[in-house]
Amino acid sequence: MAADNLTAVLYKIDDLRLENRNIPTPKDDEVLLKMGNVGICGSDVHYLCHGRIADFVVREPMIMGHEAAGTVAKVGKNVKNLKVGDRVAIEPGVACRTCSFCKEGQYNLCPEMIFCATPPVHGNLSRYYCHAADFCFKLPDHVSLEEGALLEPLSVGVHACRRAGVTLGSQVLVLGAGPIGLVSTLSAKAMGASKVVCIDLLEDRLKLAKNCGADVTLKITREESPAAVAKRVEDALGEKPDKTLDCTGYSNTINIGLEATKSGGTFVLVGMGQNEVTIPLLAASIREIDIRGVFRYCNDYPLALAMVASGKVNVKQLITHRFELEETLKAFETAKTGAGNPVKIMIRCNKD
Amino acid sequence: MAADNLTAVLYKIDDLRLENRNIPTPKDDEVLLKMGNVGICGSDVHYLCHGRIADFVVREPMIMGHEAAGTVAKVGKNVKNLKVGDRVAIEPGVACRTCSFCKEGQYNLCPEMIFCATPPVHGNLSRYYCHAADFCFKLPDHVSLEEGALLEPLSVGVHACRRAGVTLGSQVLVLGAGPIGLVSTLSAKAMGASKVVCIDLLEDRLKLAKNCGADVTLKITREESPAAVAKRVEDALGEKPDKTLDCTGYSNTINIGLEATKSGGTFVLVGMGQNEVTIPLLAASIREIDIRGVFRYCNDYPLALAMVASGKVNVKQLITHRFELEETLKAFETAKTGAGNPVKIMIRCNKD
Amino acid sequence: MAADNLTAVLYKIDDLRLENRNIPTPKDDEVLLKMGNVGICGSDVHYLCHGRIADFVVREPMIMGHEAAGTVAKVGKNVKNLKVGDRVAIEPGVACRTCSFCKEGQYNLCPEMIFCATPPVHGNLSRYYCHAADFCFKLPDHVSLEEGALLEPLSVGVHACRRAGVTLGSQVLVLGAGPIGLVSTLSAKAMGASKVVCIDLLEDRLKLAKNCGADVTLKITREESPAAVAKRVEDALGEKPDKTLDCTGYSNTINIGLEATKSGGTFVLVGMGQNEVTIPLLAASIREIDIRGVFRYCNDYPLALAMVASGKVNVKQLITHRFELEETLKAFETAKTGAGNPVKIMIRCNKD
Amino acid sequence: MAADNLTAVLYKIDDLRLENRNIPTPKDDEVLLKMGNVGICGSDVHYLCHGRIADFVVREPMIMGHEAAGTVAKVGKNVKNLKVGDRVAIEPGVACRTCSFCKEGQYNLCPEMIFCATPPVHGNLSRYYCHAADFCFKLPDHVSLEEGALLEPLSVGVHACRRAGVTLGSQVLVLGAGPIGLVSTLSAKAMGASKVVCIDLLEDRLKLAKNCGADVTLKITREESPAAVAKRVEDALGEKPDKTLDCTGYSNTINIGLEATKSGGTFVLVGMGQNEVTIPLLAASIREIDIRGVFRYCNDYPLALAMVASGKVNVKQLITHRFELEETLKAFETAKTGAGNPVKIMIRCNKD
Repeated sequence: MAADNLTAVLYKIDDLRLENRNIPTPKDDEVLLKMGNVGICGSDVHYLCHGRIADFVVREPMIMGHEAAGTVAKVGKNVKNLKVGDRVAIEPGVACRTCSFCKEGQYNLCPEMIFCATPPVHGNLSRYYCHAADFCFKLPDHVSLEEGALLEPLSVGVHACRRAGVTLGSQVLVLGAGPIGLVSTLSAKAMGASKVVCIDLLEDRLKLAKNCGADVTLKITREESPAAVAKRVEDALGEKPDKTLDCTGYSNTINIGLEATKSGGTFVLVGMGQNEVTIPLLAASIREIDIRGVFRYCNDYPLALAMVASGKVNVKQLITHRFELEETLKAFETAKTGAGNPVKIMIRCNKD
Repeated sequence: MAADNLTAVLYKIDDLRLENRNIPTPKDDEVLLKMGNVGICGSDVHYLCHGRIADFVVREPMIMGHEAAGTVAKVGKNVKNLKVGDRVAIEPGVACRTCSFCKEGQYNLCPEMIFCATPPVHGNLSRYYCHAADFCFKLPDHVSLEEGALLEPLSVGVHACRRAGVTLGSQVLVLGAGPIGLVSTLSAKAMGASKVVCIDLLEDRLKLAKNCGADVTLKITREESPAAVAKRVEDALGEKPDKTLDCTGYSNTINIGLEATKSGGTFVLVGMGQNEVTIPLLAASIREIDIRGVFRYCNDYPLALAMVASGKVNVKQLITHRFELEETLKAFETAKTGAGNPVKIMIRCNKD
Repeated sequence: MAADNLTAVLYKIDDLRLENRNIPTPKDDEVLLKMGNVGICGSDVHYLCHGRIADFVVREPMIMGHEAAGTVAKVGKNVKNLKVGDRVAIEPGVACRTCSFCKEGQYNLCPEMIFCATPPVHGNLSRYYCHAADFCFKLPDHVSLEEGALLEPLSVGVHACRRAGVTLGSQVLVLGAGPIGLVSTLSAKAMGASKVVCIDLLEDRLKLAKNCGADVTLKITREESPAAVAKRVEDALGEKPDKTLDCTGYSNTINIGLEATKSGGTFVLVGMGQNEVTIPLLAASIREIDIRGVFRYCNDYPLALAMVASGKVNVKQLITHRFELEETLKAFETAKTGAGNPVKIMIRCNKD
Repeated sequence: MAADNLTAVLYKIDDLRLENRNIPTPKDDEVLLKMGNVGICGSDVHYLCHGRIADFVVREPMIMGHEAAGTVAKVGKNVKNLKVGDRVAIEPGVACRTCSFCKEGQYNLCPEMIFCATPPVHGNLSRYYCHAADFCFKLPDHVSLEEGALLEPLSVGVHACRRAGVTLGSQVLVLGAGPIGLVSTLSAKAMGASKVVCIDLLEDRLKLAKNCGADVTLKITREESPAAVAKRVEDALGEKPDKTLDCTGYSNTINIGLEATKSGGTFVLVGMGQNEVTIPLLAASIREIDIRGVFRYCNDYPLALAMVASGKVNVKQLITHRFELEETLKAFETAKTGAGNPVKIMIRCNKD
């Protein structure tokens, strides 16, 4: 094993450094991973630019990265589900496993959750990294490490669609064609949605949505009223959508979504935009529209993996840029500036 | 049968009249009912004072009343489930039975719904009235017509608690101790809630909540912050409530409710207050709190009846005032002024 | 409109006749349909050969046919959802719409159900036929009448998969590759199943299952023990299936299914085989395997239609034989003898 | 702390001994408990008489007992939820917390489950015992250790009723009025069942059911046909029950239950009787009756505790006999012979 453990560490706002760290030793229930690929997420960029997200503040140098896959290099003595050489996708949040949330199958709400690259917890944008073995998912031979890393954003889409209850015959509205809108579109189609309508302000992003399976795409403007957009959606589907996924999170899109959704349908807030919104809650409520939130994912990695492994979705199309670990600063620069319209930027952590 | 069909008709704002109308003839699938009791609902008073609720406007004279029970006097030729002499509770909304909402068991969302005393549909505050037989529920001998009339508001509570998913062990927060807060409290306890906390601005109303089974009552002030109230609720329960029923419907109570509810819990908007509210939706969403609305009730009458018939709840305690049909104007005056702190005002439509 | 209403009438066992009947007049809530296509179902053949199914006995001459689609020729005066010229799939069971089963969204359990070609109710294998408008589903232009007729068996598959809870990532075992096994396979894949394993005694049928999307097919013999078959299934999937659909209905297949299903999974009995079975219920029960039955379908036509209309499934491949209405006796002869290995035999009722 | 750790050890069939063992030391995530009360379960008696249950065979001496409560005497270094002096109910099964069953909230199906007094795992019928802290539930001051021990059988009833979906308005049939039938009756009423009918062969047991809240009790004979019993149940309720809990587990009671249950209802097999049964599965299936099994409990202790703590149920009435730990052999003799018609026999493990 190489002695080298090149690692991307965020010291403070706009101060991201590559430095060599010691290769860690796995605890009894952990595995040491030789990292394969790590994708850059919007939250990584947010920490780089702002040093915080809500109450999570970067106070100490923090290793970046949480959309990752790697190869098992060592196993802790209690590990039974993995062996050296296994290629795995890494679910980045490790729950306590003992609280009532964990026991009831909602471990994403565990108050003791340890989550990669959420301060003060380190991430895995490095050559080597240790992780709880039960939060690593073995990849079949025909699924690449890049695809493994992409299971993280894909799991967000899967979780959102499960919370929405997307199923055979669902008519789905996706608000926003950014990365989360795209993985939601992929997931909705894989779950049997009969039609997905995706709306965005930008034509370029809508093209991607089309490639991800959106049946209809609608370019809207900021000036259109929620009622006007809702009308266009209904016209496009022939009826109102019964499932709406807002992958944006602003008063305006929420208003569109609530207006557009069928009575008795479900509106899921996936995007993290404004903290406080002004919305016509009563009008939605007396039409019995459920408004549901999502927090990351929970038991979704196996489903995301099944989707990719079965060939049902092509998730690799989301990757627009690739960099080596040594080029991490350049990769983040691309993410920050948006030069070349990146969707998903993927970093390779080891060359073999 | 008496030729007299004294009827309470709302002509326009503040113009409610008692007049004699023809006794109607039931259609093939209807029954003619000799009316027993009709309760006064907040919506009746609202039509009297404002002539409208949202888009429902009183343009023609409309018969009042929709919380009702009566005795079958005639049956239409296709009616099989009822016979002359049966005492029944009247579910006031008659759905089309053929649209997809009706067929999927959500008939309360039927766009063709005909609902008593919602313009332009007449209500049943009269001596005689015809109703669809399948929306009449036969009362057992030991359940009175007054209790039958009270199944209407009680069904609102049952529906709200079912939408919330109240079950054995639920910790329930009820915001507001008006009639809807009280029926929600009764329902929550009957469904196995281990504790119900009820909060209100007025001590008198909280006493009623206590009588309806609230384990804890908290008097709050308008000045207390949502966080402060949420803290009091958590202290009272020993944990956050997992089900919250807002029986008020204002930004302020919604903020309290979202702040107070346990992660992964459910917040139901039962009260109809403001149309537009400003709320911290993102904070609720990332804790995966479901926000659900309710619209009237759907398949809840049988449950409400079972609750009353089994003796599980004492719903008669909600009646604070009783009037004869001839005293209808006085009854509505009491409801309007609030003199004597009325909770439920009951009108008797026939003296035998 | 042609005066001719050629109709296939079953008089008694082995006595099926084509005769001319009057063209019926639609009631207020009905439509008159110029019939397009009618498929032959196993139950039709069973009535022809045995004169009864369970307690349903052919005592009077009965018109055959219930897998059907046609074109609206006249509309009753209360019909709003259809107009002359609309092409529709016909859901053959008409429920009462007023009982508690109907109101709660389980109309397939309605005790007053009227179902085509189930004695003493007539079917629709004829030139013209009247049906309740709300149980007719308008076909989009690109969906053929043959596909419309196939929505009937497809709905059985959809209903079975919904009862099983098939969803994204499900590992599904289908026992039996007859028509019901095939529509279940089509449905399971459309609902996001990651893998479907189909088992049968005959290689020919397994080829059809493969064409319908089965990922794995296993030819078994009558001599293999349930444990041995379960082992082969587990080996093929890499784990036990969490959803099992038994499209056969015999003690032996039920034993295989219960043995094979994952703990906490669901076993659905779709096939109608033996009345009484001997099964290891306790062993299944302590693994919390749910055993669920199905009865026809309920709110499944719209989903089946969406599947076909979206191009997600190719249902036409099930048709192996086509006949004109005039050739009905020959069509039934083919169904009876099984000459040419028929899967679905389709009869055309009008030549234009 | 007393050096004495008197312990009840089963050596082999009919060879139960009291002996002194070392007081164990808690692991990091465990607590040492000074045992309060331990109830005798049918399974304990079965091991004593037969040395095995199914594939679980007593090959080495095994400590008895799993219905237990105690007081925390020491805490492991990682324990945060408990402190010395806390009185707790002990959930006797400790799951692995890392498999997919555990993560999805079905830990009772965990294949690595360690369960007290199920060979080769020791139980807790002793003065001192160590248990995983997260499977201990702190009792409020007003709940006794006896009641804490009774949470174990009560949780079986809660779990069965949750699997059945008992809720407000349910009409429940309980087959068998033994201890499991009684806790199921208590649970069903607490969950809002409007009526519970309990049937048994013995009048004495039915009296206990009545005390536990059964609205109707029916004494049946072995000679009555399933149809005849089902008729009596329907007559007693005025309709068929929608939830049936079979707390017996024999072909005969299962036949009664399937015959009696309403179409679309649920039949839960709680009792562990015959391995193989002969049942009319098709008839149940086409009425869409779900047949569900149960295995112990899962996330039910908090609900059982809430039921007892809120005073909703009186679980102490189940205790018919009390013994000291020193009298354990006599206690088991009573359980074996059934002298004095024991329902629940409770052993006190420490006199202070």
